[in-house]
Amino acid sequence: MSSTAGLVIPCKAAVAWEAGKPLVIEQVEVAPPQALEVRIKIKYTSLCHTDLYFWEAKGQTPLFPRIFGHEASGIVESVGGGVTDLEAGDHVLPVFTGECGECEHCKSEESNMCDLLRINTDRGFMLNDGKSRFSIDGVPINHFVGTSTFSEYTVVHRGSLAKINPLAPLDKVCILSCGISTGLGATLNVAKPKKGSSVAVFGLGAVGLAAAEGARIAGASRIIGVDLNPKRFEEAKKFGVTEFVNPKDHDRPVQQIIAEMTNGGVDRSVECTGHIDAMVAAFECVHDGWGVAVLVGVPNKEAVFMTKPINLLNERTLKGTFFGNYKPRTDLPSVVDMYMNKKLELDKFITHRVPFSDINKAFDLMLKGEGLRCIINMEE
Amino acid sequence: MSSTAGLVIPCKAAVAWEAGKPLVIEQVEVAPPQALEVRIKIKYTSLCHTDLYFWEAKGQTPLFPRIFGHEASGIVESVGGGVTDLEAGDHVLPVFTGECGECEHCKSEESNMCDLLRINTDRGFMLNDGKSRFSIDGVPINHFVGTSTFSEYTVVHRGSLAKINPLAPLDKVCILSCGISTGLGATLNVAKPKKGSSVAVFGLGAVGLAAAEGARIAGASRIIGVDLNPKRFEEAKKFGVTEFVNPKDHDRPVQQIIAEMTNGGVDRSVECTGHIDAMVAAFECVHDGWGVAVLVGVPNKEAVFMTKPINLLNERTLKGTFFGNYKPRTDLPSVVDMYMNKKLELDKFITHRVPFSDINKAFDLMLKGEGLRCIINMEE
Repeated sequence: MSSTAGLVIPCKAAVAWEAGKPLVIEQVEVAPPQALEVRIKIKYTSLCHTDLYFWEAKGQTPLFPRIFGHEASGIVESVGGGVTDLEAGDHVLPVFTGECGECEHCKSEESNMCDLLRINTDRGFMLNDGKSRFSIDGVPINHFVGTSTFSEYTVVHRGSLAKINPLAPLDKVCILSCGISTGLGATLNVAKPKKGSSVAVFGLGAVGLAAAEGARIAGASRIIGVDLNPKRFEEAKKFGVTEFVNPKDHDRPVQQIIAEMTNGGVDRSVECTGHIDAMVAAFECVHDGWGVAVLVGVPNKEAVFMTKPINLLNERTLKGTFFGNYKPRTDLPSVVDMYMNKKLELDKFITHRVPFSDINKAFDLMLKGEGLRCIINMEE
Repeated sequence: MSSTAGLVIPCKAAVAWEAGKPLVIEQVEVAPPQALEVRIKIKYTSLCHTDLYFWEAKGQTPLFPRIFGHEASGIVESVGGGVTDLEAGDHVLPVFTGECGECEHCKSEESNMCDLLRINTDRGFMLNDGKSRFSIDGVPINHFVGTSTFSEYTVVHRGSLAKINPLAPLDKVCILSCGISTGLGATLNVAKPKKGSSVAVFGLGAVGLAAAEGARIAGASRIIGVDLNPKRFEEAKKFGVTEFVNPKDHDRPVQQIIAEMTNGGVDRSVECTGHIDAMVAAFECVHDGWGVAVLVGVPNKEAVFMTKPINLLNERTLKGTFFGNYKPRTDLPSVVDMYMNKKLELDKFITHRVPFSDINKAFDLMLKGEGLRCIINMEE
């Protein structure tokens, strides 16, 4: 039992007071975990586009002040009542979506969309009492997707924590708690390319490159990267991408270009941009008879997916995925082990590191489109 | 070797001279099979909507005179050069789509859309020499989808013939060569419902009822039939349909009604009408997290499939199928055996029987929407 168990912990957190304004490192008070909650000490966190979107709050529901952050690693400080599967000292990855273990989705082998703990970007409080565990001078600060990892200590529902191999380096595996697993799982769990097959990946940001990494691990012989930014190809080669298509270089639809390159279409495609045209192209570029397209990117609410029915009837498959179909508690430990066994490469995703005091630099890098993942060291 | 091998066979065939006009039983001459072709004596044939559509030729390319018919059973009379897997006396089902065994599709475990012998409704001749094997007084008569089973003898590419158990009753298993296998395979091979699951079937004609039969065989506990014609429910009960939804009875979209009936959606759906609204509804009525929708029905060429991307991203799967994903030569023999083993029930699909001389009655019944399958006895 930690000496702080049951007590309020004063610590530093990066608070977003207003949409789009730099975060401010503040002294916050973190209340003890309640029933089925766990308080963790965050060791490393990284920045993901979802943090950026809700911080910018352009079109997203604004909810401020708020502590963002959801891609992280940490160590359990103390647990609330009823938590039997975790204890102080356990190494964990907090996850933006959870696994209660009891709902219809958790009981289904095929779904990871937990009814109780499914991502909810509009909720700023904990489920147990509808209140925040963070406060500054008694004023509550909103949580973000149940994780709020831009804080030295945070409180998370036990269903949103994956207990991992304690030997895993927390400054690396932290990136497995969101984007990298999303892309990797989209390929390995949903697209499931066979050895020697061809895979197209739309969007060569961190999620798309993780999808390519999945294709590389699966033994795909051709990995075709599609992006509007030609600068991304050089870096993409490290992730196994063998060919590059820039839709801007062609006056015909990219699905047609890919079909010509591959004698009728790729075996699998993974769409990671969330642009509706790319979603349609990713579907229409797979081979008839056996092609499978997997949609990862989330488009704007007005978008409509449209295709001619014959594209489906000719035995193509279209699937969507959420968090790479990984169940957070059940499956993430094995993803960490995949890294420990040197099957999965993570270092190449980590392009920048900053101390917690410089967290706003991570936002600047992402806004400029520089690099893939910036690790924020909470102890610096 | 048959005594007629190598000779032209004069026999009766039902010839369609003009679109929509009654077929005329004529004396035709059937040339011997050429390389990789097989001549078969048709024992029983049944009528399928595809025959009707191309006979009516409303919007379809008209090609007359023509011998229609593609759902049938027969016995090999003689084989052409290079045919090593069939011999005179073999019991066979001719199929409107083939399996050359050598193309990329045939080599793929996942596809049955043979490059060489895929259905081609516009071709009226044999591949080997670009000519017809049928003639009347030297005037060629067009083939239909490589089968033309409304003739006592016909010539078929060996890749479009499934050799079946000789003990199987040809007057029943003839219906497995098209519609019934299409619906059955859509469920068993593509939707793959688990025991105890829920399945919605859109369209309760022969194909849809075969899809329901597949769900019954798979052990589905709820089979929800959707049709605009309430008369179909009573018959559908024989095929395992447990509930009935008529979209006309509701002022909300049928996908919403089904979601309410099933706590969020069915586990699987199979669309057999080809109406675009039904296709969209069949997709949107499956449960998030694990639902799979399978499209069978072919819509008009102008139709566009439209849905909000979130319906996909929430882990639904949309697939199309062609001939129930069965490879004709490889897989149909086991479908016949499924009937012989009393797992699959066929008798309930056969609602009418007519002698060959009355073949136009089968067309009348189908035009009136009466019954499911009408068997035409070629020897009466």
